[in-house]
Parts: sequence; C-alpha cells; structure tokens
Amino acid sequence: MDDERGDPTVGELSEGRVLRSILERLGGSNALVGPGDDAAVIAAADGRVVATVDTLVHGPDFRLAWSSAYDLGYKAAAVNLADVAAMGATPTALLVALAMPDETRLSFVTGIADGLRAACRDLAPGCRVEGGDLTVSDTLTIAVTALGALAGRTPVLRSGARVGDVVAVAGDLGRAGRGLRTLFTRFTDAAGAPIPVDERLLEPDERADLAAQLRPSPPVWLGPDAADAGATAMMDVSDGLVLDASRLAAASGVTLALESALLGADPASALAGGEDHALLATFPARRPLPEGFARVGVVQARGAEGVLVDGRPYEGRGGWDPYLDWDARTG
Amino acid sequence: MDDERGDPTVGELSEGRVLRSILERLGGSNALVGPGDDAAVIAAADGRVVATVDTLVHGPDFRLAWSSAYDLGYKAAAVNLADVAAMGATPTALLVALAMPDETRLSFVTGIADGLRAACRDLAPGCRVEGGDLTVSDTLTIAVTALGALAGRTPVLRSGARVGDVVAVAGDLGRAGRGLRTLFTRFTDAAGAPIPVDERLLEPDERADLAAQLRPSPPVWLGPDAADAGATAMMDVSDGLVLDASRLAAASGVTLALESALLGADPASALAGGEDHALLATFPARRPLPEGFARVGVVQARGAEGVLVDGRPYEGRGGWDPYLDWDARTG
Repeated sequence: MDDERGDPTVGELSEGRVLRSILERLGGSNALVGPGDDAAVIAAADGRVVATVDTLVHGPDFRLAWSSAYDLGYKAAAVNLADVAAMGATPTALLVALAMPDETRLSFVTGIADGLRAACRDLAPGCRVEGGDLTVSDTLTIAVTALGALAGRTPVLRSGARVGDVVAVAGDLGRAGRGLRTLFTRFTDAAGAPIPVDERLLEPDERADLAAQLRPSPPVWLGPDAADAGATAMMDVSDGLVLDASRLAAASGVTLALESALLGADPASALAGGEDHALLATFPARRPLPEGFARVGVVQARGAEGVLVDGRPYEGRGGWDPYLDWDARTG
Repeated sequence: MDDERGDPTVGELSEGRVLRSILERLGGSNALVGPGDDAAVIAAADGRVVATVDTLVHGPDFRLAWSSAYDLGYKAAAVNLADVAAMGATPTALLVALAMPDETRLSFVTGIADGLRAACRDLAPGCRVEGGDLTVSDTLTIAVTALGALAGRTPVLRSGARVGDVVAVAGDLGRAGRGLRTLFTRFTDAAGAPIPVDERLLEPDERADLAAQLRPSPPVWLGPDAADAGATAMMDVSDGLVLDASRLAAASGVTLALESALLGADPASALAGGEDHALLATFPARRPLPEGFARVGVVQARGAEGVLVDGRPYEGRGGWDPYLDWDARTG
C-alpha cells in the first residue's frame, strides 16, 4: 500500500486529517478567531478591511513539472499579498481554498502549506493563514483571499494619478517573464512538454529569473510606505508594465510617459514581461520618492495613447500569454 | 460563428469584457472601494471582520445537468453567508474566484452573477459581490469568500456550549438531503448519469426539497439574533445534523442529546441529511429561544458519545457522500 510509505494520498485520508496536517505547518494563528470554526475573525482596527482574491489553476497558471508544492504555496500567497500592498495596506490574514485531486500526496499538501507560511514570513510578517476550505477537484486549484489593514491611511487607487506626477516602480520588472521564457526554452522536451528544472544548467542570473517566476518576492512592505509618501495612484504589475500602466492611465484619465533608459538592462522584458508583482505608483513631483521606488517616467495629460515609451506608442507585444503551449496531458 | 448567436464563449472574449458583463449584473457596490482596483475596501465598523471561504467544484459539488448557472451562483453565495451567520455576524461582502473552461458561454457566467446577486438580496441585503478573480480552468470552480460584521457582538464559537443549555436549530433539516436523493433516484438515466430535471414530474414537497438542495435558503438573518439572545455556541449544519452536532460537542467538551420527536416528520433525513445550512446553536435554558429557533435537545455532560439520539448512540449513516456516482464524463 502507498500508505505504508508514510505519504498517503488525500483520498485515503479524512478531511479532518488533511486539515490537521496543514494547520501543523502554518505556524499558529494571529487572529481574534483562527482556523477551526465556521469563519475566522480578523482585527480591522481602523474600521476598514482590504480584501482581494487571486487563483492559481493547474494548466493556465502553473505546471507541476516546473513548480514544487512549496513554490505554488509561496506564489499563491505572494501575488495576493502584492494586491493588498498595492492599496497601501499591510496584509493581516489569508484564507486558502484548496481544490485538489484525490490522488494528491499528503506531502504535496503540506508543501503548499510550507510555501504559504514562508511567503507570509518573508513578505508580510504577522500575516497568517487564518482559514480555508478543502475540496476534491480534477484540477489542482489554489484560491487565496488576502485581507489587509490600512491603519488609518487612505487607500491608494488606480485612479488618482495627476499630470506632472512622477511614475515610479518598486520591485523587479522583467525577471519573472524571462524566467518563464527560460522554462519554455530550456526545460521542455522535443514535443514541447515541460520537464523538471535542473538548476545546475543555469547561470546565477537565470536562476534569479526563475525564482522570480516560481516564487515571486514582491516588495509588499513598500505599499504602506508609498501611501505614506503621498502616492496618488498605485497598482500591482501583474500583466506586464505597459499593459498595467495603460490600465492605471485609463483609470486616472492620463497618459504615462515611460523612459526605457530607466528600466534597467533589459527594457524589452521590463515593458512586456508579466507576473512581476512589482508596485507601479505615481507620486507628486515635489516630494522625494520613498526608498525602494525608482523613477521610470512622468504623468502627462491624456493623449491618444495611455502609455508612451520614449515618447512613442509602444509597438511590442504587451504582457504574456499564460496559455502558451499549455497541454493538459503533460503539464 | 457561435459569436453571432449573441452568446459567445468566454474564450472568445477578453477578460475585461467578461468582467464587465458580470459587474453589470451585480447591482453595484456597497463598499468603500468596490470592484475594479487591486483590492476592495470593506467597512468593518467595530474593528473586526468575519471571514470565510467555501468552494463549489464541478463534479463533487454539483452536476451541470441538475444545477443551472443561477443555482450555482445562489448556492455558492448561500453556503458562505450561512458560515458568516453562524458566527453571529451579518454578511457585508463577497469576493468570488471563478475558474471556468474557455468554452463556457457568457450567458452561463452572467447566470452565476444573477444567482450571487439574488442570494445576497434574499438572504443578506446590503451584502454585495465586491471583488473577485476570473481564471481559465478545465474544471468549473466557484470559490466564494464572505466577509461579515459583528457590530460589537462577541463571535459565537463552536466551543461555548455548557451543560444544561438548550440545543436548537433554525432552518430546514433534511430537505436538501432528500432533494439530492430525488435527483439521484428520479433524474438519472439507466447508466446512472444525471439527466435534466423536469419539475412537472414532482410533487410540491419534492420541489421544495429540490430547491433546498439546489438553491439553499439558510436563515442568515437569525445568526445575529442568536448571538443577541445569548447563544453559547453555534455552527452551520452542512454535513448533517449528527455529524455537525458531534463537532460542536467535541469543541465544547459536552454531549448533545437530541430528541428525534423534535425533528419533524422525517427525523432520519434531519439527522443524516447534508447541505442543510441550518443554524445549530445552544442557548442558556433560562431564557426564551429567539424567534425562528426550535428546540431539538439538551446539552449534557460529556459522555462516551458526543451525540445521543433519544438517549442512545446514533447508528445511522451520518452525513452524505458527495462523490456518490460522480462521473466526470456525464456530470
């Protein structure tokens, strides 16, 4: 029996047993009421709570040949923590809805829990998994809800950018997209199917790209700093800088004029990459940028284009295609 | 082209277009910051927020031959609203993570939105869908996060039942389980595959059972009433009265002694059914029960069994099996 190896499938265990194994890995609760009741109760000291949900689905969002369970837990937490940060808030709690096939190994589930916990520890200390839901599904799916506290701050929306503001970014741009390209070009077989990553084949910089793709580290702690520094608009860069900048521009009724020379050594990846989970924000020009943010452009009056790069419309491909080469049989 | 029929698939549309169609059906926001930014901001006036998540997955949790899109939206909301109510709180907001196959029709998605909105209207006026996430998946999955406000109340946990308390229930017990049996016995083909429901074949009471299964109407508004009436423990009955009562009993370190004569005309279904989403609560014996709750037993000192029925251990099957006959090809 598989069970005798000490790593049963979830289908061989009760829901309660799987849940206990997860809870043991999560490092305890920081909530008023933590896991185990019908709902959690989370402090929201200033009378408001920031709330967001984002889902990772096997296939479109990850391949098991490339992502470990730990990676998945880490990424599922990180992308949501970044959304809370992008409002100017500090994450306070996660709720995790985990739907997985019956044949999923218990060690895989505890690996996800380890990744969730590590992302909270690294990116948002004090934030814990305070609730969740386990279900059976043919498709491994991790839906994470993140809650956050504004601590009296005004939430920073996408719609507040003003002409003359500085456009700035905190966090890496382009790395995660390059990491995805590395996976598709270096770790697929002749038929295009994903094969396991051998990090020994990679240069240090490629390894960093891969880490940014598989275990993103958004600068969550800089979200509140940006709010305190007077950010007029902010958002998480998840679909590529140009595409997300065009969304912020549309919400604010302005044009963001970006300068490629300010986008590092690989501006093409920075502009069109995806899954960066960097923070894109606009700040009043008269004040110094908060530490961690770097200027990438300026806010102009709304023109025909929402985004200009070096004064011209952007002609490259904006964002990346998560469906690229996805094959349900080999993912 | 399918598109010309006016009901495109989501794979033919942009995410933004699908999102707009959903938002048009949701009836607007009641939040401080509603849908459209990186996260929502929800009022939590007393400095706390109740939060829970529950997921419906195609296959284990529903069959498309039996549930309409509207049904799915309604149920996904209702089961989460009940969890908020079971803490003694009033629901304030939903976040909805919707993962669906590319070939899903737009009309199906807007049907889900209509069901979500209707459940909020019927069960928790003031609560709206304030955020969410759309992803592609091979498996239709609806993960709903519900937030709620305690308005100064102490949250009612599972662990507070005391010896001598009255055990009471608000809401239907047994109907949803009978509705599921009706589906399996009357609306399957010779091979056991689900076939569409023809309500004309049903008696009024069977129709009510079916409605309880497909579009549950938990008494969400009675959760805060129970808290105000001094409920010592409370939970949502989702897996059958005996099984859930045994959980409350274990959390409280007591035994719940139920009386089958108090469980209506079909005590067997009331005891072993599932998906009732009734509220099970314990109240001090000296005070009148709040309106809407009916006495079903008494809290005793912890014995060998967590639950007794008419003074004896319960011997029937507890809860129901969502995997019964599930077949991925025909669901």
